[in-house]
Amino acid sequence: MSRIAPVTAGEVARSIGASVVGDSALVITSLASLQDAHEGSLSFYGSTSFKDQFLVTRASCLLVRASDVVLSPCSTMIVVDDPYRSFVSVVSAYVQPSRMPEGMRAADAEVSATAQVHTSASIGPGCVIGEDCIIGARAQLVANVVLYPRTVIGDDTVVHANVTMYTDTQIGYKCIIHAGAVIGSDGFGYVQQPDGSYLKIPQVGNVVIGDEVEIGANVTIDRAALGSTRIGSGVKIDNLVQIAHGVVVGEHTAIAAQAGISGGAVIGKRNRIAGQVGIAGHVSLADDVVVMGQSGVTKSITASGVYSGTPAQPHARQLRNDAAMRDILQMQQKIDRFASIAERFESKEES
Amino acid sequence: MSRIAPVTAGEVARSIGASVVGDSALVITSLASLQDAHEGSLSFYGSTSFKDQFLVTRASCLLVRASDVVLSPCSTMIVVDDPYRSFVSVVSAYVQPSRMPEGMRAADAEVSATAQVHTSASIGPGCVIGEDCIIGARAQLVANVVLYPRTVIGDDTVVHANVTMYTDTQIGYKCIIHAGAVIGSDGFGYVQQPDGSYLKIPQVGNVVIGDEVEIGANVTIDRAALGSTRIGSGVKIDNLVQIAHGVVVGEHTAIAAQAGISGGAVIGKRNRIAGQVGIAGHVSLADDVVVMGQSGVTKSITASGVYSGTPAQPHARQLRNDAAMRDILQMQQKIDRFASIAERFESKEES
Amino acid sequence: MSRIAPVTAGEVARSIGASVVGDSALVITSLASLQDAHEGSLSFYGSTSFKDQFLVTRASCLLVRASDVVLSPCSTMIVVDDPYRSFVSVVSAYVQPSRMPEGMRAADAEVSATAQVHTSASIGPGCVIGEDCIIGARAQLVANVVLYPRTVIGDDTVVHANVTMYTDTQIGYKCIIHAGAVIGSDGFGYVQQPDGSYLKIPQVGNVVIGDEVEIGANVTIDRAALGSTRIGSGVKIDNLVQIAHGVVVGEHTAIAAQAGISGGAVIGKRNRIAGQVGIAGHVSLADDVVVMGQSGVTKSITASGVYSGTPAQPHARQLRNDAAMRDILQMQQKIDRFASIAERFESKEES
Repeated sequence: MSRIAPVTAGEVARSIGASVVGDSALVITSLASLQDAHEGSLSFYGSTSFKDQFLVTRASCLLVRASDVVLSPCSTMIVVDDPYRSFVSVVSAYVQPSRMPEGMRAADAEVSATAQVHTSASIGPGCVIGEDCIIGARAQLVANVVLYPRTVIGDDTVVHANVTMYTDTQIGYKCIIHAGAVIGSDGFGYVQQPDGSYLKIPQVGNVVIGDEVEIGANVTIDRAALGSTRIGSGVKIDNLVQIAHGVVVGEHTAIAAQAGISGGAVIGKRNRIAGQVGIAGHVSLADDVVVMGQSGVTKSITASGVYSGTPAQPHARQLRNDAAMRDILQMQQKIDRFASIAERFESKEES
Repeated sequence: MSRIAPVTAGEVARSIGASVVGDSALVITSLASLQDAHEGSLSFYGSTSFKDQFLVTRASCLLVRASDVVLSPCSTMIVVDDPYRSFVSVVSAYVQPSRMPEGMRAADAEVSATAQVHTSASIGPGCVIGEDCIIGARAQLVANVVLYPRTVIGDDTVVHANVTMYTDTQIGYKCIIHAGAVIGSDGFGYVQQPDGSYLKIPQVGNVVIGDEVEIGANVTIDRAALGSTRIGSGVKIDNLVQIAHGVVVGEHTAIAAQAGISGGAVIGKRNRIAGQVGIAGHVSLADDVVVMGQSGVTKSITASGVYSGTPAQPHARQLRNDAAMRDILQMQQKIDRFASIAERFESKEES
Repeated sequence: MSRIAPVTAGEVARSIGASVVGDSALVITSLASLQDAHEGSLSFYGSTSFKDQFLVTRASCLLVRASDVVLSPCSTMIVVDDPYRSFVSVVSAYVQPSRMPEGMRAADAEVSATAQVHTSASIGPGCVIGEDCIIGARAQLVANVVLYPRTVIGDDTVVHANVTMYTDTQIGYKCIIHAGAVIGSDGFGYVQQPDGSYLKIPQVGNVVIGDEVEIGANVTIDRAALGSTRIGSGVKIDNLVQIAHGVVVGEHTAIAAQAGISGGAVIGKRNRIAGQVGIAGHVSLADDVVVMGQSGVTKSITASGVYSGTPAQPHARQLRNDAAMRDILQMQQKIDRFASIAERFESKEES
């Protein structure tokens, strides 16, 4: 449940171009799910999966489809085509994310004399900003953020607490970097010596991240050995994802938690990589590829579509294989029966 | 090996209600495994897996079962029913975890004027405590911990270094939050637009954690989109686990390292989720479910029991499948032989 | 692309004992991949996978094999046997990693009066160094590093930002610990009580890390319950790896991102553990074992070689199984055909 400044049902309806059934003057003081709603809450009913909760919700007002008005336990409703999307719009409009005071400079932040920090950017306590960093307008560095030399942060980007960015990292506009993320650490590259020991390959590239990218908590993105690891604009990366050195991720691709992309892989645009997926080094994925959870992509994928399994294959084929696997014990039993028949047949042949 | 203040074998035995065979006045100065033990060490022998180490240990005193007394290389022993559990009790009694000085306030900690910090709580260097936070009695924030506004930390909870908690996070009593954990970051929620780009769904819920919960290093737990992500009392979470938005974890469930639980999943009480397991969004798991390592739970599990594989199924069935899989090459060979027989049979039929 | 101080092709060639074809006085100002190279860049052509890029590169100078000189688009080349290794040597020689000023002490670092910090060690802003820590010569702690009491850091070791080390952690010489790593956190050990709740087993051991070890970003390495978790010299660990309590990793073993090693496992020397691999508790792996990506090692591996799959088996056998799996639908069809033949045969027998 999220409290909001009081607003009437009529005002909410107007803000999303919808109409009210019931009391337009009803005052809404919170936004909540059907289950958590209380008196004063606005909630929404968008999927029959939640019908039981819908019928007993204590919400004062609901966003519903016209066809559900008659069933609603509330006497005040806002009628919309897509209750979930409308609810998202209402939350976006009425719940303001907390922002740091514009132009704040924490007394104990360590800002290099050669860094260029826009006057409207906010630098929280414990932040360390290295030489020649550039921090854009209205950017926010919450607390204990460490930026190594020559890091560039675009306008309106928010960097949460305890984030580390190594030298030469570039972040675009309107990005959100969640707490604990590490961007620009050395790629995992060595040359094995005859005695089995490893010689470190210097990792002298960097990481370049586009605009409106969101990066989850404790994500790791390594710098390229040479050149740049590149994350396209609009990419969304969930928590604990690993992006290795030299990877390229196309625009508007989404990568779910704990997925890992090995060195030099090139991921297309608008891919959706599910949780715990592993992608091998130096493969490439076409645009509009979906990879299901826990899959292992060992070869390049050249056609858009849905893939799953380890090694990954088209999902439809994987489903057929899974079904066959579930029958494998029966297959064995059938084969054992054939074995006895085969013996009888062969003894007949001989006779 | 862990050094302790000197204590006699007799005193140790009395503390666990056991009796000494040999020299009660023997002085113990350290607690150690059979292998690491030295003169002055107390060790234990509880499982025949360690018999080789038992026979040659340099420990001065051993916790053993009565039946093992005769084999023991030590002349002084403490006789108990369960040597391992007794050893754990001895460690708990004689090794004190290091604690921060009660009521400590590091000079450089940034504590908001509106935060309520109990006088007995300890705030280490570099900590940042936001507006309206509440820190309970004897709570310890070790160093560089960042608490966003309105975080609540219960009595006797320890928060290790470099932990971040976002707004409205609530932590119960006697919890241990290990270093680098991020609690309350935004859930991974977007609405895809017709052009393939993503619109962020505001994540305005929070995270609520019960009492006596332990959370591992670099764990990530996302806030709910609406309402709360909930971790029940007594839950134990290992390192690098991902808990997505809106997940509910029942009391006394244990989740091993690198497991990931997707958005909206509901996990029962006393579950044991092994390492690298993935659990799909919006499924529910009954109480007393065990999921084996690396499994992928794609559907709800309604009965207690042991499950494994991807997609997860009852473990006994998975074991039979694994056995069949190991025979699959023989199945192929048999099938090839049948094919030749089938041909001969069919040619006979025709003739 | 990495800029360097200007140097001639002749000087570069001399530094690696090679000879120049073309203009020895050509000035090189950057090191780059074939694709990113510009005027003034030195690049290399070592594998035919990059032939297309080789033929159109804008590099001014190339490291090439003698056999490729005739095809090269550049008029100046340095001729070598192994262009990639030679390029690595050139990068190592001409790109200097940025170092902190020797002996630096940030004003706001919190260094215990009982810690012994070598005069040449560098302590960056926000670092916290506990009682009785020992920091070696030329060691660098970049920023916001937290060392609990009695941590030991060897000479020439670099600890990146936001790293946490718990009490009694020991790190050898010339190690690199990347940002966000947590070393020495409590192992995941509990005794389940009759009511289903867990009693914490005190974790009173520590972590001991050898020399020339590299540890990736946001890695977690737990302290042993008793004794030590041990990482041998020369080990390389990638990002987001989990090493549980009591694990032993042999010298010169490499562990790729997101792999997890469960409690008490013993890994041999010169192993290569690929990404997202899981290794069960208390198993042991021989020397010179390779485990392929996403595999699950459930039993000890006693012979060197390549292993894959879950449960892991020799890779050659796994490949045959994978091939059989791809044929499983055909196997089913064949079996269905046999079923009809079997019926006909049996009805004949009866008649």
